[in-house]
Amino acid sequence: MRYIGEKEIEDIATGAAILGAGGGGDPYIGKLMAIDAVRKNGPVRLLDPDTISDDALVIPVAMMGAPTVLEEKACNGGEYKALCKMVEDHFGRKIDALMPMEAGGFNSMLPVAAAANMGLPLVDVDGMGRAFPELQMVTFTLGGISASPMALADEKGNSVIFNTISNKWTEELARAVTMSCGGSVSVTLYPMNGKQVKEYGVKGIVTKSENLGKTVRTLKKHGTKETLKVFLEETKGYALFQGKIADVRRETNGAFNLGTIELEGIEKYIGKKAQVEFQNENLLCRVDGKIVATVPDLVCVVDCENFNAVTTETLKYGKRVFVIGLPCYHLWRTEEGLKLAGPRYFGIDTDYKPIEERIKGLNDEI
Amino acid sequence: MRYIGEKEIEDIATGAAILGAGGGGDPYIGKLMAIDAVRKNGPVRLLDPDTISDDALVIPVAMMGAPTVLEEKACNGGEYKALCKMVEDHFGRKIDALMPMEAGGFNSMLPVAAAANMGLPLVDVDGMGRAFPELQMVTFTLGGISASPMALADEKGNSVIFNTISNKWTEELARAVTMSCGGSVSVTLYPMNGKQVKEYGVKGIVTKSENLGKTVRTLKKHGTKETLKVFLEETKGYALFQGKIADVRRETNGAFNLGTIELEGIEKYIGKKAQVEFQNENLLCRVDGKIVATVPDLVCVVDCENFNAVTTETLKYGKRVFVIGLPCYHLWRTEEGLKLAGPRYFGIDTDYKPIEERIKGLNDEI
Repeated sequence: MRYIGEKEIEDIATGAAILGAGGGGDPYIGKLMAIDAVRKNGPVRLLDPDTISDDALVIPVAMMGAPTVLEEKACNGGEYKALCKMVEDHFGRKIDALMPMEAGGFNSMLPVAAAANMGLPLVDVDGMGRAFPELQMVTFTLGGISASPMALADEKGNSVIFNTISNKWTEELARAVTMSCGGSVSVTLYPMNGKQVKEYGVKGIVTKSENLGKTVRTLKKHGTKETLKVFLEETKGYALFQGKIADVRRETNGAFNLGTIELEGIEKYIGKKAQVEFQNENLLCRVDGKIVATVPDLVCVVDCENFNAVTTETLKYGKRVFVIGLPCYHLWRTEEGLKLAGPRYFGIDTDYKPIEERIKGLNDEI
Repeated sequence: MRYIGEKEIEDIATGAAILGAGGGGDPYIGKLMAIDAVRKNGPVRLLDPDTISDDALVIPVAMMGAPTVLEEKACNGGEYKALCKMVEDHFGRKIDALMPMEAGGFNSMLPVAAAANMGLPLVDVDGMGRAFPELQMVTFTLGGISASPMALADEKGNSVIFNTISNKWTEELARAVTMSCGGSVSVTLYPMNGKQVKEYGVKGIVTKSENLGKTVRTLKKHGTKETLKVFLEETKGYALFQGKIADVRRETNGAFNLGTIELEGIEKYIGKKAQVEFQNENLLCRVDGKIVATVPDLVCVVDCENFNAVTTETLKYGKRVFVIGLPCYHLWRTEEGLKLAGPRYFGIDTDYKPIEERIKGLNDEI
């Protein structure tokens, strides 16, 4: 057990935003919320998942919806209290701890803020090891754990509880309500006992985010090949492309941000042109026509200058970025994992190949 | 207290389908369900609302969605059991009685079937005295009673509970889920105590439906002016038009049936041409360009031959029909009632005028 205070929040926000692979929401708003909460209530206890008891009641909290909407229509702070009350009423017992659902700028911070405000500890675990656009895409689904009962609350005071026959149905119905509520809402789902969290969770994700954030903060000589090399060593990642954003095609549809980023190479470094396709999160990177990475591996777009994540809602014409590929959590590479979050689920007509195979030859010049 | 058996069901189905004003679903499917239920479980006790205790827990049950969908995708019979369980778990007590939400072919029958199968009595009351397309359009909203908690269940086993800040928000969110569930679902909403039911309900609606059904069943010399006269005397209604259906423009949108019926006069009786516009229910009747009735008054289309209701999902080219106007329940004519369900709510650019005023001169020749 250790504590998360302001300094840790800064690093977690930076690192988790990168692991969000374009999604998971704006790290800035999330960070402000979390810092405000620990200033008022003191630091948050971070629990190693292996130390929690098997019958602890642990619930993830997150925002659901399109990050572009979330940026303008954040939560009012009362939603997770309403959510926790709904869960406690349902189970007739107190919640023991909160946890994040995914890594991402906002969705890593909301649980910290909620934990501080509710006086609850946070477990160092999530269900993705990255961010994904649909709620059934968690390791817990692979473990046969139900997203139900799922509770949803909006900033106006509306709340909904879902009990569904599958996690895909939870996604369908909750997405419809999210759209009707204006495109973004607060949710809790996959209420779990400690045993389930330990068995299927991606352990150590908060710490991993924090370490990644620390790396970014302490990088010297930003924007150089040397810094990139250090960054890649620290993240065990691969450089897929360096370029400037030449075009962004984007629509907000079905409470998702959908689109494509067109990139033009800088100094013909690695390739001439690249595309990144996204649905909240980046799904695919193509360099000079060749696919170099797909979901469930992470396609992360970071600012060339400071290695901060460029999330899909903050893409700007002319920005200079690195596209970095990171291998996903091992469970995503199983047959079931790929069925749930592989390229074909997203309509991408290619079989999954691990990024290590796809990029062979690509990183030789670094 | 009296009992509803097969004979009563036949008459209630016929009468309620007429009072459904085009909506409320198919009386045939509903009737079969109700008859099957009373054959298995015996007749249903029908309670006079004035005899129920002030603290009785009374819940309405209904289908929500587009009647065209309902016709092909009825409920499996387990939904209202799931709904009742959700309500009983929520309130921590047993339900004392069921009631219909609206008059209509299906939505008058479902509560009878549910009451028979659950061994519960039915209260002779509803919240409309007709059918309306949106769930906030009930006399209970006028009484400040909340639609929440609302429970929704589909035939696949998904269920949802809504707690909303207004009845219009309940409609918004439940409609979105209804669409995602395939366009029609079973619901219970406006859970009430006996006092509220007595204060704001439209009392005697089941008996009124039954009497109207009896009138239709016993009419002699069908299809003549004389029969129409008897029918109008019994219903206290007005003949608006007689004609054949020349065209039906229809779309299923937002879990509603929307459209217009074009009618051509038979033997220039009353008028030459008429239109009836509908959103699940008939909203408006125009004869030779002049509006002769609007919501919240009832615009009922009935078969010329047997006076059976022609619901908006069973409109057929060439069918010969009477369009009958009936005055609505008095609460709908108040300022608040018209705000909730008057013509302007539905985008009809006219102020409400009671049907008695609109049809002056029109019925003189009968």
